[in-house]
Amino acid sequence: MATPLFPELETPSALVDVERMAANLDRMAAYAASHGLALRPHTKTHKTPELAVEQLRRGAAGVTVATVHEAEVMADVADDILMAYPPVGAWRLERLLALPAHVRLTVGLDSAEALDALAAAAAAAGRTIGVLIEADLGMHRAGVPDPAATVALARRAAEAAGVAYRGIMFYPGHIRQRTGEQGPVLERLAADLRRHLDALAAAGLEPEVVSGGSTPAGYQSHLVAGLTEIRPGTYIFNDRTTAVVDACSWDECAYSVLATVVSTAVPGQAVVDAGAKALAREEIRGADAPGYGALLDRPEVVVKTVSEEHGVLDLSATSWRPRVGDRVRIVPNHVCVSVNLHDRLWAVKGETVVGSWRIAARGWRADAAPVLDAGGR
Amino acid sequence: MATPLFPELETPSALVDVERMAANLDRMAAYAASHGLALRPHTKTHKTPELAVEQLRRGAAGVTVATVHEAEVMADVADDILMAYPPVGAWRLERLLALPAHVRLTVGLDSAEALDALAAAAAAAGRTIGVLIEADLGMHRAGVPDPAATVALARRAAEAAGVAYRGIMFYPGHIRQRTGEQGPVLERLAADLRRHLDALAAAGLEPEVVSGGSTPAGYQSHLVAGLTEIRPGTYIFNDRTTAVVDACSWDECAYSVLATVVSTAVPGQAVVDAGAKALAREEIRGADAPGYGALLDRPEVVVKTVSEEHGVLDLSATSWRPRVGDRVRIVPNHVCVSVNLHDRLWAVKGETVVGSWRIAARGWRADAAPVLDAGGR
Repeated sequence: MATPLFPELETPSALVDVERMAANLDRMAAYAASHGLALRPHTKTHKTPELAVEQLRRGAAGVTVATVHEAEVMADVADDILMAYPPVGAWRLERLLALPAHVRLTVGLDSAEALDALAAAAAAAGRTIGVLIEADLGMHRAGVPDPAATVALARRAAEAAGVAYRGIMFYPGHIRQRTGEQGPVLERLAADLRRHLDALAAAGLEPEVVSGGSTPAGYQSHLVAGLTEIRPGTYIFNDRTTAVVDACSWDECAYSVLATVVSTAVPGQAVVDAGAKALAREEIRGADAPGYGALLDRPEVVVKTVSEEHGVLDLSATSWRPRVGDRVRIVPNHVCVSVNLHDRLWAVKGETVVGSWRIAARGWRADAAPVLDAGGR
Repeated sequence: MATPLFPELETPSALVDVERMAANLDRMAAYAASHGLALRPHTKTHKTPELAVEQLRRGAAGVTVATVHEAEVMADVADDILMAYPPVGAWRLERLLALPAHVRLTVGLDSAEALDALAAAAAAAGRTIGVLIEADLGMHRAGVPDPAATVALARRAAEAAGVAYRGIMFYPGHIRQRTGEQGPVLERLAADLRRHLDALAAAGLEPEVVSGGSTPAGYQSHLVAGLTEIRPGTYIFNDRTTAVVDACSWDECAYSVLATVVSTAVPGQAVVDAGAKALAREEIRGADAPGYGALLDRPEVVVKTVSEEHGVLDLSATSWRPRVGDRVRIVPNHVCVSVNLHDRLWAVKGETVVGSWRIAARGWRADAAPVLDAGGR
C-alpha cells in the first residue's frame, strides 16, 4: 500500500489548509476595508483564539461570539467582543460580568426581560455593557418585528443604568448567495432596515452601530445602505453549502476532514471513518445537493449517508475505486458544526502538517467542575 | 419570575433521569437473560465508563465500542470489549494492541486487507485478537455480501497467527421498530443469517459468537434463530426517534437537554439556547415526524428548526406561551449524537440534580499532544 495522505495523523482529523485560509481572510478584510465596513468575524466557526488573532491582525474591529464560553476564550486575544446572543439567565450574566476588565462587551437582545436583567446585574457589578437591539429583517428566527418595537427597546436601553445603547443588529440567514437571484430579497431587507433606521433617527436614537452580514450575504453588504459592520463566520474556511449556493468557489474551501476507507464490501460505495460525529448529518438547505459532504479532490464523490462513525461514499459518478486503507479529504456541508465535533485543528500546507490548534471554545464551559458519582440505581 | 428548572445548572445541559435509565437497563437485561442472549451494550451512546459499569453489574457480558478511544476509556471498567468497527490503519492497530493486558479484545471486520494487517501487527506484538466477520444482512452499509465471502474470510481468520476466529456479526440498522410491521424484514434477515450459519457449519467454521441487535430490533432478537448476542446502545436513554418508531414509550425517554427560552419576539414560536450544537440537526428517518426534538413534558411542542445555538419551538399545537427565561427539557431525535456534543451528563431524580459524569470517551483521543503554533500566514 502506498504511503497514506498525512501519515502522521490519525483519522478522522480536521484539517485547515493555511494558504487557502489566509486568502479567505485577506479577501474579506479587503472587501470590508474597501467599503468602509467594520469587520467583526463570528468566531463560532473556528472557536480557536489563534485564528481570531489572524482576523484581528488583518484589521477586524473585534470579534463576535454566540456563547459565554466563546467570549471567555476570545477575551484572551480580543478587547472588543460582541455576543450576538441574548444574555438570558443569571449564570450567563454572572459569567459575562466576570469577563476581564479590558473587554469592551456588547450584547444583542430582543426583549425587555433580557434588557432589564442585564441592566440590573451590570449596574450592581459596576460595569457598563453595550446593547444592540436585534431586529428581524426577514429570517424570522429572533429579533423585534417592527420599527416601533425597535425604538421602544432602544429607548429602554438608552435610559437604563448599567447598559449603553449602541445600535441595532440583524442576521440575514435567509440570504444564501453571494451574487444574483437574491436581488429582490436583498432590496426588501435594505428597505426594512431603512424603516428601522428612520424610526430610530426620528426618536433621537440614531444607532452608532448597524451590524449585519453573514458569509453568503457578506460580499453584498455594500448594497445595504446604513450598515456599519458585518459579522461573517464561515468565510474563514467555507464549506460545501457555501460553494453549492455560489457564495465561494470549491477551491476556496480551506477545511476538510481526513478520513480512512474502512470497508469496500458493499458494491458501488466505500465506507470511511468520518460520519455524523465528524462531519455532522446536516442536509444542504437552499440548493438541491444530496448528501453530507464531498471529496475535496473529487467533488463528484458525495457522502451519501452517514451513521455515527461511518460515512458512505457514493461511487456512482466516478470510475475511481478506493481500497481499504486509502485516505480521503471530505468537505462537509456545514463547517461550523463539523469543527465543533473536533478538539483540534491540524494546519496543513499542501500535503504537509505544519502545526495544530486546540479548538478551545468548543462546548459551553471550561468544565473544571468536580465529577460527582451519581450512581445509576 | 419563578425559580427556573434546575437552577444550579447552566444551559444547555444534558440531563439523565436516573430512575428511567435504571428501568431501561433492567428491562433489556431481563429480556436478554430470559432468552439466553448475551447482552453487550454499545457504549457509543453514553461514552461514559460509570454507565458501562451499570450495564456490566446488571449482567452484560462485556461492552461494544466503535472507536479506539472508546475502547481505551472502557478498558478502565470492562475486561471484554468488542470493537464493532474495522481496525484499519497503522495507528488504530497500535493503540488497540496497547490496550491493557486484562482486556479480551475482539474486532469486527469485512476485508482481507483489514484482517491481514491486524494479524501481522498482533502476531508481532505477541497478542491474540478475536475476530468476528461482519456480514451484510440487508442494511447495505458494510459487511461481506454472501455466505461464500463469509466462509472465505472466516477461514482466513482461522488460519492466521495473531488472531482468533470467533464468529460473525451484523448490524440490523434497517429494522426500526420493536413490534409489528417489521415481520417480513425480520424474516428475511433471519433467513439470510441461516444461510451464512449453514455455510460456516458446512465448512467446519461454526461460530462461537453470532452478534446482532440494535435498540429498535432488540426486543425481537429471540425471533432470530442462531443469535447468541445483542449490542443495543440507545436503549439506556432512548430518544424521540425510538419513541416515534414505536420502539419505546415516551415515558421511557431518560435523556433530555435542559434549555432556556431566550427570545419570544417572533409570533408563534419561542427560541431556546439548544440548537444544532446541543441537539444535533438530524431528521427522523423511518417515520413521518418533523423537527429535531420535542419537549419532554409537552411532546406536541416540536423543535421545528435549529441553527447552531438556536432551537425554534413551534407553538402552533399548544396554548402554552413560554416567557423569556423559562426553562424546558428537550428530547432530541437521536440521543447518541446529542450526548457526543456535551462534555458532561447531569444525573437527575425528578427535579433534583444528584450528580454528574464526565463523557470521557467523547472525541477520538485523549488529546494530550502539545499545541504547535501553526500561524496562519
